Amino acid sequence: MKSDLFFVGIDGGGTKCRARIEDSDGILIGESISGPANIMRDSVLAKRSIVEAIEKAIAVSELSIHHEQCVVGAGLAGANIAQAAEKFGEWSHPFRQMHLLSDLHAACLGAHNGQDGAAIITGTGSSATCWNNGVFTDIGGHGFPIGDVASGAWLGLKAVQHTLLCLDGLRKEDELSATICEALNTQNANDIVSVCATFNTHHFAALVEQILPLLYISIDSVVSLFKEGAKYIESVANVLLANNDCSLAMIGGLSTIYSQHLPSEIRARTVSSKSSPQQGALFFAKTRFFDFQSSNLTGE
Amino acid sequence: MKSDLFFVGIDGGGTKCRARIEDSDGILIGESISGPANIMRDSVLAKRSIVEAIEKAIAVSELSIHHEQCVVGAGLAGANIAQAAEKFGEWSHPFRQMHLLSDLHAACLGAHNGQDGAAIITGTGSSATCWNNGVFTDIGGHGFPIGDVASGAWLGLKAVQHTLLCLDGLRKEDELSATICEALNTQNANDIVSVCATFNTHHFAALVEQILPLLYISIDSVVSLFKEGAKYIESVANVLLANNDCSLAMIGGLSTIYSQHLPSEIRARTVSSKSSPQQGALFFAKTRFFDFQSSNLTGE
Repeated sequence: MKSDLFFVGIDGGGTKCRARIEDSDGILIGESISGPANIMRDSVLAKRSIVEAIEKAIAVSELSIHHEQCVVGAGLAGANIAQAAEKFGEWSHPFRQMHLLSDLHAACLGAHNGQDGAAIITGTGSSATCWNNGVFTDIGGHGFPIGDVASGAWLGLKAVQHTLLCLDGLRKEDELSATICEALNTQNANDIVSVCATFNTHHFAALVEQILPLLYISIDSVVSLFKEGAKYIESVANVLLANNDCSLAMIGGLSTIYSQHLPSEIRARTVSSKSSPQQGALFFAKTRFFDFQSSNLTGE
Repeated sequence: MKSDLFFVGIDGGGTKCRARIEDSDGILIGESISGPANIMRDSVLAKRSIVEAIEKAIAVSELSIHHEQCVVGAGLAGANIAQAAEKFGEWSHPFRQMHLLSDLHAACLGAHNGQDGAAIITGTGSSATCWNNGVFTDIGGHGFPIGDVASGAWLGLKAVQHTLLCLDGLRKEDELSATICEALNTQNANDIVSVCATFNTHHFAALVEQILPLLYISIDSVVSLFKEGAKYIESVANVLLANNDCSLAMIGGLSTIYSQHLPSEIRARTVSSKSSPQQGALFFAKTRFFDFQSSNLTGE
């Protein structure tokens, strides 16, 4: 008999929330996208985005599925922050079950199809984890500007700092400073201050698009910027992959660039992502659901 | 005949506004302190603080002085930002005249009693200028985190970044990471993220007090942190003092530490501040007032 249960995987970040719904046989029946779902930044909005994404995915399936038939795995930005996770856990949600994990953990589980493996994500932010013997070990992340070394935001900030040093006559002006001045539409340090006063991580990270062409033509300051980032990524990979035989998935917009800088022994262990973060979150929900079932059956 | 004019010097920053009022013979007749006066952050509050400080200084003088007898020099944080300065300039203030300059420029003029000279300020923030032949040349500043290298906020941020790298196993834990963990009351990276999420420049700079004892017992990571800051200060001093014979005033809470790290040829040119930033602002107001008078007399 086919179960009346459905499994949902959520990948929620600062701008989007993606949902994937499968039936109990693991057949994909719907996918959707809604708004922001970062529970650290705005927990109310995140919950709304999650419900909306699931309802849209159900609508896509064209099946009559009730909330209480859904076992949800929610991989959400901010879930690594204890306070935010605790508050989220108090939600009287309408679903059968809700299993929270971080967006990083969902991406890692997705990349390795639920098998043991490590992941380094470098996009607007940066973070890393290794899923091994049922335990996640996280490295980095921590947000901007105290952490997220090697991320797009970090690169953008470093490029702006370089430009200000050049405009102050403390470093030689070069293609990088010229490019940043052009991107910010000014030649003046005080104007850069005014523009950057309203910058968040996304604004700083957006500068990377302008900087990348300079990397390809080997401008010194840009090469050393990316080398500093790559050195950090390498040290993270070394810690992640020590004492295990896990593969490493490099994920995010900067992953290709940083992968090229990794030493050959680490590159030999890198693999492509097998599936998406929402599939990772769905796997997590399924595992937790059946763990719960079997522990109940065995009277644990 | 004694003039009915009075000159006021204002030193306004993010937390306090100091006023000094002198009669036309340069005799101090009143001083006072009021609230924040950073025109970049809150222009309305800054104006209120300025009026309050001047009225309090007048009250101290026990003389009957009207607003329109006061020629004011206002050395204000944020005055280096063109937009903020322009908006401030639109103020229909009740005083005879109002001459705006930055807090940095006021400090520099004060330090050298209005004579040519350079100043490097290192406290919560960092900035530098040289007043030479009637022109200010600024270096650095720019605010946190894009600028203010070597400042207290910069040192505090670097210390937190170091601590997170240690907790991630990417650096060896040491006295610095232990001290920061103790100051933030946690051993956990995620808790540090939560605590620092609400940090502003003052919170980061406040960590310096805890870090300083580690500098005095030469803890490697702390020594290299201050050396990096000192290297920046040295490069700023080199640019400020090139092609002139100006003296250099090192001002602010971190000035003594950084002064010790300067090479002997720069140390030989350092001097103590002769007077306060509000005296510098007052000097500025006086100069501008008499420049205006003489240009009117000569029909310029």
